[in-house]
Amino acid sequence: MAVYTDITETELSALLAEYGIGELRSYRGIAEGSENSNYMLHTSSGEFILTLYEKRVEREDLPFFLGLMQHLANKGISCPLPVQRRDGGLMSEIAGRPAAIITFIEGFWVRRPSAAHCREVGKALAELHRAGEDFGLSRENAMAIPGWKKLWNGARERADEVEPGLAGEVESDFAALEAGWPSGLPEGVIHADLFPDNVFFLGDRLSGLIDFYFACNDFYAYDLATCLNAWCFEKDFSFNLTKGSALLAGYQSVRKLEPTEAQALPVLAHGSALRFLMTRLYDWLHVPDGAMIQKRDPKEFLRRVRFHRAIDSASEYGLDA
Amino acid sequence: MAVYTDITETELSALLAEYGIGELRSYRGIAEGSENSNYMLHTSSGEFILTLYEKRVEREDLPFFLGLMQHLANKGISCPLPVQRRDGGLMSEIAGRPAAIITFIEGFWVRRPSAAHCREVGKALAELHRAGEDFGLSRENAMAIPGWKKLWNGARERADEVEPGLAGEVESDFAALEAGWPSGLPEGVIHADLFPDNVFFLGDRLSGLIDFYFACNDFYAYDLATCLNAWCFEKDFSFNLTKGSALLAGYQSVRKLEPTEAQALPVLAHGSALRFLMTRLYDWLHVPDGAMIQKRDPKEFLRRVRFHRAIDSASEYGLDA
Repeated sequence: MAVYTDITETELSALLAEYGIGELRSYRGIAEGSENSNYMLHTSSGEFILTLYEKRVEREDLPFFLGLMQHLANKGISCPLPVQRRDGGLMSEIAGRPAAIITFIEGFWVRRPSAAHCREVGKALAELHRAGEDFGLSRENAMAIPGWKKLWNGARERADEVEPGLAGEVESDFAALEAGWPSGLPEGVIHADLFPDNVFFLGDRLSGLIDFYFACNDFYAYDLATCLNAWCFEKDFSFNLTKGSALLAGYQSVRKLEPTEAQALPVLAHGSALRFLMTRLYDWLHVPDGAMIQKRDPKEFLRRVRFHRAIDSASEYGLDA
Repeated sequence: MAVYTDITETELSALLAEYGIGELRSYRGIAEGSENSNYMLHTSSGEFILTLYEKRVEREDLPFFLGLMQHLANKGISCPLPVQRRDGGLMSEIAGRPAAIITFIEGFWVRRPSAAHCREVGKALAELHRAGEDFGLSRENAMAIPGWKKLWNGARERADEVEPGLAGEVESDFAALEAGWPSGLPEGVIHADLFPDNVFFLGDRLSGLIDFYFACNDFYAYDLATCLNAWCFEKDFSFNLTKGSALLAGYQSVRKLEPTEAQALPVLAHGSALRFLMTRLYDWLHVPDGAMIQKRDPKEFLRRVRFHRAIDSASEYGLDA
């Protein structure tokens, strides 16, 4: 929730001259996203988002992210479309940062999702998986088990500051997940971060998916497991079976899960919860208080980790047998 | 640069039902303003700004601020117009905060103002002073000398942490300013915070003035002195005489300064620089690092204070005799 890099109107007008989207009328920094600087632009031809990619995004990943949005939008997925420069490119540079202009998506993210919202998200996730099948680029999931371990190496020593016994608990989870992690499941392009603040609705209608900056290639069912963590727990950390059931039914209305995927769902959901526990734990312990990243409580995901550890079958998430 | 209070779409839709500005299409937190939470709203009838007033704004001051914007907009000043509720009121409440919806002003603030921008600002300030003459409400300047002293009481002890000798320097300035502060100058409604981020331009044309939340009744020339501090110093803290001259000429093209005002300009500019030194110093020493207020270096205003202390006549600011 921040703008890390300020830009001048001179820089911005020079940038806009590279595009065919008219004259600048207004630009305002948006208090959203914890990784990049985002501006809402008004030009004589409409509204756009300008994103400046800050340190946490690797420049060499941008062709994948921007190409994916373009591919998905062209397939009819409602997501931001990167605007082409006059020279045909999608990437620019401003204030020393790589940057892109993308179309503006109407709607707003739902602070208190209902089961109907969960169903729509499940459906949209499966549509995204289908639409990504023939995307030509691929990107390794930097936040798979080796990525979690890297974060853990920087957090282990002080983990018990967050909760006594946490270090031992996480170590034993790592062992269990590495031993039990599935292989050979259907895979392809996944969003990997489809939390409520990345899904826009107008009423009950899903109006768009945003923020593809964790997208990568991995198991489809892992993406679905992340949505279970992101959408189906209440503020008191209880799992809402109605929402889980709606999410899974929505997904399956477009893409039926294979038996191996259904079987792997508990371990994938457990792993996904651990992955978000790792990033939150790392930020909690490392991000200086003066930084503009909003630190979120790692324990929210520790509660989810513990829940999934006790799950035997995907039917406990509401999966229709 | 923050959004302090998050709002749900349910709360916001309920709020919009009190207004006649159509259906909600989108809302995004804006990374602007250090005092309040601001959202850009898109509705089926256009764009608006929703402001939630946080702790630093007194609820009883809102009728003055909102009424003033309405008065000025009706007089042809380009500033946000508070949108009337269906019941005729200008103030609402959302998420436990007083709130108002105001019209959206096109344009953007100029990071590197030119002399032409300074001239336009001077002109707009004088027009604002003229337009406010028959505004029916008044508000004491909470940031006059007694207000500075209150801040100083909370900063004096640690002032030398910022620069050795600062405490003594400020104490002697307080004595000099209290002894030399003018009286009987023309007064009325002033903006009191017309820094570059509160003035929007489209090219060289001034498109609007925003953020009236320090507006109050005080000497017109004090407002002009604040603009000298806000617009006419370079990044290296040198005073730019061309800009000062343009600002003052722009002002006088609408409202000619009286001899007493011209004579008082150095002491008013000195006082105004001390006023911003006080708030910055206070925030520097008191705002916790985790807070979302961007702390700005008090020394920027200490340099201005020292500059004005050595000024004998307004002609040194570029005032045409």
